[in-house]
Amino acid sequence: MEPTHRFLRACLGLSVDRTPVWMMRQAGRYLPQYRSVRSQSSFMGLCKTPDLACEVTLQPIDEFEMDAAILFSDILIPLEAMGVPVEFTEEGPVLPSPVRDAARVERLADPDPEETLPFVMEAIRRIRRSLAGRVPLIGFSGAPFTLASYMVEGGGSKNFTHLKRLLFASPASAHALLGKIAATVSRYLEAQVAAGAEAVQIFDTWAGILTPRDFAEFALRYSRDVIDRLRSSPTFSSSRVPIIYYVNGCAPYLDKLSRSGADVVGLDWKVDIGDARARLGPGVAVQGNLDPTALFLPKEAIEGRVREILDAAGRTGHVFNLGHGVLPETDPEHVRAMVKAVKSHG
Amino acid sequence: MEPTHRFLRACLGLSVDRTPVWMMRQAGRYLPQYRSVRSQSSFMGLCKTPDLACEVTLQPIDEFEMDAAILFSDILIPLEAMGVPVEFTEEGPVLPSPVRDAARVERLADPDPEETLPFVMEAIRRIRRSLAGRVPLIGFSGAPFTLASYMVEGGGSKNFTHLKRLLFASPASAHALLGKIAATVSRYLEAQVAAGAEAVQIFDTWAGILTPRDFAEFALRYSRDVIDRLRSSPTFSSSRVPIIYYVNGCAPYLDKLSRSGADVVGLDWKVDIGDARARLGPGVAVQGNLDPTALFLPKEAIEGRVREILDAAGRTGHVFNLGHGVLPETDPEHVRAMVKAVKSHG
Repeated sequence: MEPTHRFLRACLGLSVDRTPVWMMRQAGRYLPQYRSVRSQSSFMGLCKTPDLACEVTLQPIDEFEMDAAILFSDILIPLEAMGVPVEFTEEGPVLPSPVRDAARVERLADPDPEETLPFVMEAIRRIRRSLAGRVPLIGFSGAPFTLASYMVEGGGSKNFTHLKRLLFASPASAHALLGKIAATVSRYLEAQVAAGAEAVQIFDTWAGILTPRDFAEFALRYSRDVIDRLRSSPTFSSSRVPIIYYVNGCAPYLDKLSRSGADVVGLDWKVDIGDARARLGPGVAVQGNLDPTALFLPKEAIEGRVREILDAAGRTGHVFNLGHGVLPETDPEHVRAMVKAVKSHG
Repeated sequence: MEPTHRFLRACLGLSVDRTPVWMMRQAGRYLPQYRSVRSQSSFMGLCKTPDLACEVTLQPIDEFEMDAAILFSDILIPLEAMGVPVEFTEEGPVLPSPVRDAARVERLADPDPEETLPFVMEAIRRIRRSLAGRVPLIGFSGAPFTLASYMVEGGGSKNFTHLKRLLFASPASAHALLGKIAATVSRYLEAQVAAGAEAVQIFDTWAGILTPRDFAEFALRYSRDVIDRLRSSPTFSSSRVPIIYYVNGCAPYLDKLSRSGADVVGLDWKVDIGDARARLGPGVAVQGNLDPTALFLPKEAIEGRVREILDAAGRTGHVFNLGHGVLPETDPEHVRAMVKAVKSHG
């Protein structure tokens, strides 16, 4: 059965009345109402308290009437369940006990997401109830390569030397690690859909540091593995749950991304969306790709940038979004101008 | 008159006996003999003392018989002469007084490089004497956009919000700033060639953060402006001094880079060099593009990666290099294996 909401229809390449719009990190620090909730809880507290996660997830829907909600959570949430603790600091996530050898990879847990991350599934159920069908809810996870990057580096990184050493000097351990993460990620996304998520996005934030051949071997292969597992799960196939694969720094890999198995390829802002569609081919929808800093433009100028993207992408198979998460410094009124520009485009 | 050295010949697309090789940041911390000199001087001390700059410039030539030397210096050196002081700290460069408004742009100096940066020209003269014709010497500068990024951000940056605000909210000031820097950069590179540099490289380290249209407007336009000025200078045209334009994160802009005016486009490691040549077209040579972290591979495996690049690039119009600067963690013996692999390729 075909979905009726324009966001789900656009993901599947079906006809739409207009291009849908949402924003990565739309529940976030640029919103005063988010900062107000956040001032009373730690970041992890928000992620782990279903009521609070539900509240902030709905804020941008109420404020801007976005066409999709996305679960408030963090891509690193499943790592603790695998046995790799994460601390969220002002400077970003810190993993005090990084994974850098075969023995440690061997010891990683294969967690049952329902048991180890019940707060995520509960948040999804509450959000669905609160949304009451207004817009679809997107679940998400980090991609295996990106989660492995954090696990091995122990946090963010400039040159990813620990990770690259593992990939290049101990490829068997690297593949074992990526395989384990892929299994966890697919179970995690299946559980999210079982709880009520109506689409899922896989975030490959760090895949853009790889040569095209290494991207195929270490990133795409494992995201594709997740996607294949999801496709063969009854939860997914019975309801045609769209899968979005977002790669930050995607320009070198567009030809390969046409074979990711995802319904939608999420594009960063550095590629021309028309060129990207041409290189991806007709079988896949695209999501993106306004430069998040273009929201610093005067409000009048934002409309022009939005229009260029909509014209280049075409009406069918396009979900409007930023090319990366919205920045905390962004004026919400400029977000409103962006949403209005998308909605009023002919 | 055609140059005889294979590095200069490759830059100009002329026939060569084999592909030449050098490495960005080849005079650097991965070399014990560099660390020994550096232990007795600050980084700026090395840059500003011609004898020391000459000594470290020659180290990789003596150690690995690279096919080109590159002046030991820093891309931020001309900023102080323009009136923007730079401090080099362990965490990277810090500019305590960033440039963020029209009045400050207006006050920037247009320095005479011979007067304000005599140590650079003296280092070039000494290096040329010490090299005595063994290999050509490359001079360099940061590209206008990348120098502007540092000036506006006050150092490195994650999201470049100050810079993007200037570009998008005050484009007239941004263009005035970029125009001033382009004038300084072209005079600086002319002076380097007058002092003895036999090729120049323009480093656009940060241009990869831009959408294709912003890359054309704010980065390529001003690098092209520098290149055009150099082309029309008698110093350059009389001796066919090759110009290399390196853009980190070049994948989205390859079509545009064919019109940069440079003889050589320097590629980062994220693009397939064969694809890049196809998109750049026949009129331009390429430089690159081994992943710097591929030097963490076992020595035997490095040869395979080198061979793939040489085969994909073809013999003519290719200068072998890394796709970014060599990392401090690199084993010099792995650099030796890379150089050997290039030199022994059939």
